[in-house]
Amino acid sequence: MDLTLLEGLAKGNLTPGTYDYYAGGADDELTLADNVAAWQRMRLRPRVLRDVSDVDTATTVLGTPVSMPVLVAPTAYHKLAHPEGEIATARAAAGADTLMIASTLATTSLEDIAASIAAPRWFQLYVHRDQGMTESLIERAVGAGYEAIVLTVDLAVLGHRPRDERNAFSIEGHEMANLQTGTPDSEGSGLAAYADSAIDPGLTFEHIEWISSLSGLPVLVKGIVRGDDASAAVDAGAAGIMVSNHGGRQLDTCLATADALEEVAAAVAGRAEVYVDGGVRRGTDVVKALALGARAVLVGRPILWGLAVDGASGVADVLEFFRAATVRAMALCGASSVDEVDRSLVA
Amino acid sequence: MDLTLLEGLAKGNLTPGTYDYYAGGADDELTLADNVAAWQRMRLRPRVLRDVSDVDTATTVLGTPVSMPVLVAPTAYHKLAHPEGEIATARAAAGADTLMIASTLATTSLEDIAASIAAPRWFQLYVHRDQGMTESLIERAVGAGYEAIVLTVDLAVLGHRPRDERNAFSIEGHEMANLQTGTPDSEGSGLAAYADSAIDPGLTFEHIEWISSLSGLPVLVKGIVRGDDASAAVDAGAAGIMVSNHGGRQLDTCLATADALEEVAAAVAGRAEVYVDGGVRRGTDVVKALALGARAVLVGRPILWGLAVDGASGVADVLEFFRAATVRAMALCGASSVDEVDRSLVA
Amino acid sequence: MDLTLLEGLAKGNLTPGTYDYYAGGADDELTLADNVAAWQRMRLRPRVLRDVSDVDTATTVLGTPVSMPVLVAPTAYHKLAHPEGEIATARAAAGADTLMIASTLATTSLEDIAASIAAPRWFQLYVHRDQGMTESLIERAVGAGYEAIVLTVDLAVLGHRPRDERNAFSIEGHEMANLQTGTPDSEGSGLAAYADSAIDPGLTFEHIEWISSLSGLPVLVKGIVRGDDASAAVDAGAAGIMVSNHGGRQLDTCLATADALEEVAAAVAGRAEVYVDGGVRRGTDVVKALALGARAVLVGRPILWGLAVDGASGVADVLEFFRAATVRAMALCGASSVDEVDRSLVA
Amino acid sequence: MDLTLLEGLAKGNLTPGTYDYYAGGADDELTLADNVAAWQRMRLRPRVLRDVSDVDTATTVLGTPVSMPVLVAPTAYHKLAHPEGEIATARAAAGADTLMIASTLATTSLEDIAASIAAPRWFQLYVHRDQGMTESLIERAVGAGYEAIVLTVDLAVLGHRPRDERNAFSIEGHEMANLQTGTPDSEGSGLAAYADSAIDPGLTFEHIEWISSLSGLPVLVKGIVRGDDASAAVDAGAAGIMVSNHGGRQLDTCLATADALEEVAAAVAGRAEVYVDGGVRRGTDVVKALALGARAVLVGRPILWGLAVDGASGVADVLEFFRAATVRAMALCGASSVDEVDRSLVA
Repeated sequence: MDLTLLEGLAKGNLTPGTYDYYAGGADDELTLADNVAAWQRMRLRPRVLRDVSDVDTATTVLGTPVSMPVLVAPTAYHKLAHPEGEIATARAAAGADTLMIASTLATTSLEDIAASIAAPRWFQLYVHRDQGMTESLIERAVGAGYEAIVLTVDLAVLGHRPRDERNAFSIEGHEMANLQTGTPDSEGSGLAAYADSAIDPGLTFEHIEWISSLSGLPVLVKGIVRGDDASAAVDAGAAGIMVSNHGGRQLDTCLATADALEEVAAAVAGRAEVYVDGGVRRGTDVVKALALGARAVLVGRPILWGLAVDGASGVADVLEFFRAATVRAMALCGASSVDEVDRSLVA
Repeated sequence: MDLTLLEGLAKGNLTPGTYDYYAGGADDELTLADNVAAWQRMRLRPRVLRDVSDVDTATTVLGTPVSMPVLVAPTAYHKLAHPEGEIATARAAAGADTLMIASTLATTSLEDIAASIAAPRWFQLYVHRDQGMTESLIERAVGAGYEAIVLTVDLAVLGHRPRDERNAFSIEGHEMANLQTGTPDSEGSGLAAYADSAIDPGLTFEHIEWISSLSGLPVLVKGIVRGDDASAAVDAGAAGIMVSNHGGRQLDTCLATADALEEVAAAVAGRAEVYVDGGVRRGTDVVKALALGARAVLVGRPILWGLAVDGASGVADVLEFFRAATVRAMALCGASSVDEVDRSLVA
Repeated sequence: MDLTLLEGLAKGNLTPGTYDYYAGGADDELTLADNVAAWQRMRLRPRVLRDVSDVDTATTVLGTPVSMPVLVAPTAYHKLAHPEGEIATARAAAGADTLMIASTLATTSLEDIAASIAAPRWFQLYVHRDQGMTESLIERAVGAGYEAIVLTVDLAVLGHRPRDERNAFSIEGHEMANLQTGTPDSEGSGLAAYADSAIDPGLTFEHIEWISSLSGLPVLVKGIVRGDDASAAVDAGAAGIMVSNHGGRQLDTCLATADALEEVAAAVAGRAEVYVDGGVRRGTDVVKALALGARAVLVGRPILWGLAVDGASGVADVLEFFRAATVRAMALCGASSVDEVDRSLVA
Repeated sequence: MDLTLLEGLAKGNLTPGTYDYYAGGADDELTLADNVAAWQRMRLRPRVLRDVSDVDTATTVLGTPVSMPVLVAPTAYHKLAHPEGEIATARAAAGADTLMIASTLATTSLEDIAASIAAPRWFQLYVHRDQGMTESLIERAVGAGYEAIVLTVDLAVLGHRPRDERNAFSIEGHEMANLQTGTPDSEGSGLAAYADSAIDPGLTFEHIEWISSLSGLPVLVKGIVRGDDASAAVDAGAAGIMVSNHGGRQLDTCLATADALEEVAAAVAGRAEVYVDGGVRRGTDVVKALALGARAVLVGRPILWGLAVDGASGVADVLEFFRAATVRAMALCGASSVDEVDRSLVA
């Protein structure tokens, strides 16, 4: 398994517009690149001469056991990658004993995703201008057995994505299955038209408590890169903070998530769980994330490449790649369990 | 709108010599590149969960309301880019409710520019060896309703611009309409010959007060990159400081303006307004400039590319690009107004 | 002698799989590159006006005199490079009055290597899951007159080496002569299969004392990049610490050895000897290593290139290259002996 | 005048071996590149609003007036560049009212150089193993009216220059006119053979006083990059320190001279004059050197390019280029005289 090769194979299976939508980022794609580079820049200080005969990657996320600190990030429109779409992804995640976060912008309804697996699942929420639609999404997620709400907060407006604009990207022939809305018509990016018209730019810290009360579920806030915001979100009721810049797709030149993680973890100070996504491509990245305070990482694009190449089986291969790579990186760092990954491992 | 693409289109509409004159810089063009790179290097630390339903980019510059903190920098010879020249630029700026700074080296007289718009306007002044000519320019600017004098101070001598030297750049067929002088004859750069013979290398801080008294207008000093110089200019009567290195066209390896801005703003300490130009290409650059203490940015080359591609309409497109990009960057940084852009947004 | 040219010549003499095995590293090969780059980044502050008429590179390693602070690193499978294999390397090292560290994974038995030279020799040990095999290796090394055990500790599991995986690298046609095991059959890397099944991931600090007692020989611990680990290894009985990341072949993004050396030397504080390998390609690298606290450097890949190009004679050329380059670098730094190389030489 | 273009033209006029000899450096040529890059990395903080109507570049070097702080560095073998050799260079330097430092390795005798100009001149000395030859050189320099001895101290042994080794560089057909020795025969670099056999690796601080006494002339020590060495050289009688790494030709990865200058100037603390060479290509480099404590810079390779292209006239063009560029850089930094160039100009 070579993720670069996998991406190349996936590209061959996707329309150019879909590939660009998945692969691209905002403006000059500087944060897109920096997310990967920031992990690569960090140097490990491995420990040796620890008994690593039995490396255990298991951990829990908000109390839910997972086989490894690698979750499936919420990403949109899986049917563009493979006819089985989100159900393939969900089954692969469940098969790997880890957790998928289903996207509001799925091409499969949250109920159908839920019905396809017995495993725990979380739901990623965009708050809409139409409060009724937001309430409906939350209630449906509760009804379908989702165990947490991942509230995305870094999409007050849609980032400027030159590739999508150039391609006039749309999901033509597919639907946003959770939303009962048609595909927006637009000369530029269809997603941009949808986001501008539907997603609520008025989202504030108060919404955390509102969603929590309405759902009775823990709320994780995804899209934070500052300690003060993270602390305020926890004060406002967040059970988890996901350090994210939306994969470099929203605000270009935003701090790389790897570079933001430690400040956030320090500010949260154990009052909530901290997660990180963006540019995680290696087992060593996973170890670095844990060392800097993350409970787990979320992986996005590589999952889509696996899905595009071979459906559920391809996603399973990607998850197995991350599992094996995390085991290896932990062993070579002298850590038998995630608890033994400490700050000193990163220079 | 993609500025890189726009520049390519503009290049096709310009003579090679004119393109190089607009695009080029001094010596090895290191500052030219660094002006852009310095903004790109800076990382944003966006705030989330602020209500950005209504992002307002409006501000004032020396009390004059403008729709956004993006002004049109003074640049020379607009008729080389488009037959309608400075009048096209002025009308587009006025149409965008922002402010154009007319150049001493315009190919349209300051009176004709003024007559073409009802909007506020500022005049950029080169002090000439011929004091009478300088006085005349100032008096004409007052007479034509310009509301401030932007005194350029970083052109005591002309920078060494290899492209212009190689091209023997001249404005043949056009005239410096404010100056009633012919095009200088020269084997090398015609501008170099003009600057050496006509522009006063004896300019000092005393000139600020002199211009201010003579004109009765506020004087902004353009071309400062040091805190001590900025402070001295304010002590000498400057109403505004424009952090600029002349777009990397004068002293190569000069500090990038993005890197100089904070020191200048700290030294000025609110006693005058601070502006910055050089390498501003994105809405995120505008936000960074405000965060580091600028009241507004000035945009130069992109305006010329728009002008070359489509006259007033092209300039309007560029200004609209900056407006939309600034709104988006502010929204994604959690700022509803320019006052909410603070220092903490830049890492 | 130009090492880059030599590597090119060697590549022509090797199968692609063998070349890649020697030349490659783990994952993205970032540490592989950084090992070289870290020495290159360091700037020398040479002393002048010292009498360097007689530069003496001689030193001792654990009391054994060597002609220069450059040893032959343990590397595997020399018969893949040249039919005379490890015996050619050993004879060249002996001829240069320096010391070869024979690898557990040699294609020549440790006894045959020992029988081929009268010179001092050290044995590199992998501790196996099969304790009897480990004991046997140690006893055989003692019996064959090896004077120290170099215990490799950074191979709890084998690093992920994409080149070997892609090439399904194996030593087909050759044997691991010390191990009386056949070539492992595997679809991927044969070495990976061997390492996973045979090498003990349960190695701990206690093994140092065990090996020391069993052998009666000094034990050098190879594969440490942290001061705390180095100090603990010395506390556990190590006579020497070898700062190494296995040539960038194990844990990618591990600290470059040049960057780790000073911390290790400070932690050891003279209680044991400190060595370093990884990326040493120039005499100036040798001087930098000594300046930062190393007693000597180990050279790996360049030896293999010499061996592949011209057997013992090729190895001798490489060692002579390093000797001459070290003399030159010392002379140009004002150091007549290794004792005169001090910390201040590195900026 | 464009130095890069000039180098290209010169290359066309030179044998490949001579071009490489002039252009090349030691080992990987990292210091060769860094010498240029270090000046380029430094950012200027220009002052504005100073009256620079009359920029005067004049200064003195050890009391000798020169028209600008730019001297001609000692370089070898000028007849390889042009039939008129050192005499062309000397006349151009004299014509520019600056000072040439004649090399021990000139292809014109020091007497013939002296006889060709009325201007002040300094002599660069290599101390030879043959003390009589050294004494003879010194006495001849005194007799020929040289006013200072520039003692090169960074060539205890010759640096490893791969280009010369590959080219088997020799000065075949020319002679080292000061030395009455033939061209050394060698399979590798002829210069390396000469240096190893003839130049004294036993040079120490004591030689400074010896040369000073023998000659009655001030001695400048060329080839220092450390404050402590500079201070010791001054204590030993040096009248000047030349911060130099021999143009990156001796010890690769040596500190760039631009990066070493400030430490040296601080250590010398006004007790002697400080000079710098290495990578000076722009007027801004000259200003940076003065700002960091240099009395003047030495220019080497560009002089040779001018010589190769057009003899004395070509050298004159290069010197005029530096004069004009220094005037321009000073004017744009707000400095009317070299005394007004202060530390604050460099960031």
